[in-house]
Amino acid sequence: MMTASAGRYVALCGGVGGAKLADGLAQVLPPDALRLVVNVADDFSHLSLRISPDLDTVLYTLAGVAHGVQGWGRAAETWHVLDEVKRLGGPDWFLLGDKDIALHLLRRTMMEEGATLTAATRTLAQLLGVAVCILPVTDDDVRTMVETDAGVLPFQTYFVKLRCAPVARGCRFEGAQTARLSAQVEQALRDPALAGVIVCPSNPYLSIDPILAVGGLRAMLRDADVPVIAVSPIIGGEAIKGPAAKMMRELGLAPSARVTADYYGDFVDVTLIDEVDAALAKDDARLLVAKTLMRTREDRAGLARACIEAVEKIRKDRKDVLF
Amino acid sequence: MMTASAGRYVALCGGVGGAKLADGLAQVLPPDALRLVVNVADDFSHLSLRISPDLDTVLYTLAGVAHGVQGWGRAAETWHVLDEVKRLGGPDWFLLGDKDIALHLLRRTMMEEGATLTAATRTLAQLLGVAVCILPVTDDDVRTMVETDAGVLPFQTYFVKLRCAPVARGCRFEGAQTARLSAQVEQALRDPALAGVIVCPSNPYLSIDPILAVGGLRAMLRDADVPVIAVSPIIGGEAIKGPAAKMMRELGLAPSARVTADYYGDFVDVTLIDEVDAALAKDDARLLVAKTLMRTREDRAGLARACIEAVEKIRKDRKDVLF
Repeated sequence: MMTASAGRYVALCGGVGGAKLADGLAQVLPPDALRLVVNVADDFSHLSLRISPDLDTVLYTLAGVAHGVQGWGRAAETWHVLDEVKRLGGPDWFLLGDKDIALHLLRRTMMEEGATLTAATRTLAQLLGVAVCILPVTDDDVRTMVETDAGVLPFQTYFVKLRCAPVARGCRFEGAQTARLSAQVEQALRDPALAGVIVCPSNPYLSIDPILAVGGLRAMLRDADVPVIAVSPIIGGEAIKGPAAKMMRELGLAPSARVTADYYGDFVDVTLIDEVDAALAKDDARLLVAKTLMRTREDRAGLARACIEAVEKIRKDRKDVLF
Repeated sequence: MMTASAGRYVALCGGVGGAKLADGLAQVLPPDALRLVVNVADDFSHLSLRISPDLDTVLYTLAGVAHGVQGWGRAAETWHVLDEVKRLGGPDWFLLGDKDIALHLLRRTMMEEGATLTAATRTLAQLLGVAVCILPVTDDDVRTMVETDAGVLPFQTYFVKLRCAPVARGCRFEGAQTARLSAQVEQALRDPALAGVIVCPSNPYLSIDPILAVGGLRAMLRDADVPVIAVSPIIGGEAIKGPAAKMMRELGLAPSARVTADYYGDFVDVTLIDEVDAALAKDDARLLVAKTLMRTREDRAGLARACIEAVEKIRKDRKDVLF
């Protein structure tokens, strides 16, 4: 069921949680009314493959081929290549299934032939039958480095190899200062038909920050004419997946849906928080209660509708003030 | 069973037939007494993998993991990556199994980290438990182009994609003029302990010529002090595998074991031909009859012993003349 919507939406997203809301938005908006701007700072080269974890999670989720539970990779995956890599003494700490490797090989092949990451992503989306526009935030290299008590670690070392065990002190995004938004992202944000921007429930420090760090995007959103809303990845003081809550604690914060709202305070108009956190919204106009936990595909569509309604309400309120 | 041998041997080889004799030599010589110099002009980049068909056939054969019948690739192979590549519309004309892809990924990773093809091959041999020294003839790029009635074709296009269907007019080896023998090959050929050089029963035009074309190797063999012998890949007027006989016909020659001997005439002392071709050897001292068809591992060892005996006989005959 499509929601009759006034305009187009841009959604910023990382991996799992972001991909779920992206799928919800794809269910309720016409394909041309949605632009997904995806984090690329987790990307890395491994086993001579070009791996883009967040782009792939979004791609697989929208194509309906994502693994239902683990939050990365594909359903009905096999592991023959990695088994042999391991047998030959190669690195096996980063799990790469056979189907996943096929996609990485195709992406690298396209990029070696001169395609940008944006163009390669478009082609892969077409091959997987995904109509929605999935845009890497930049075609330049940005790489997340996590500052921890065990030293400054490349993202995948921290996240996968060490399973987020080291205590995080902060993140830096190498290359972000010189990286430019892709022309397609720039265009999506400056689109006169843009109705609003949605920050998906991804890790604020590891997934959203490295998007915002590119090409002055955070300042652009701060100055945006359209509503910018967010969905808290924290529900009942915990993250549904990943280290967001753990990192908040390590940064000296009590994890709560309000932390996200505060963290995005300079550019987000409203943050959707879950029903279990309704008490927080009592005397805080920046917080809006919704059903944010996405267990089913219907939950995803429901949250997407709540996001669109929140944007439309802000637009209406602003109009009421103006006229 | 090791043959007590006076010195070291260098064997030049391409894929299937060459690999079989290489395995025979590896059975009868101590590991340190054998250096395999392998063709790299069939190497190519495909699906962003670095593929070295002849090196891999030799590696897999010596490791005992080669496919027993098809002449390339591995035994007990699976095809999950290629199935998905195909499903996604990628190129599937070059057959790459999952285990094979694991090796290609490891090789490319090593080479991206700065390893030469020689160093990467040594590491892969160790990982596969192969003690014999397998040397790419060069670390520089040499690429076979086949001149055909359908135009000048890259080797893999001619060999795999078009299944050798076009009529061959000749071959050229791009890069051969500037390519240098690797230091390890140079050393193997100038080794004071070198007893002899064996040209394996590989395709003279497609496998041996591009080895000989590098760094003046053909002239080096012409001037060599040690015996140089060859094994004819043609038995009873036909090649056991591949297009050698077809190419001979297209080049206007009647395929026979003598064609190989003639073709190598300037640098080979003796060519071993099969028992079925014994008549050819009657009045031709350059030809020596042996059991060259290798059906079993014992056949390979037997032919290896025949090669070593042929070298030793030439050495003895020369000594007899000198003293």
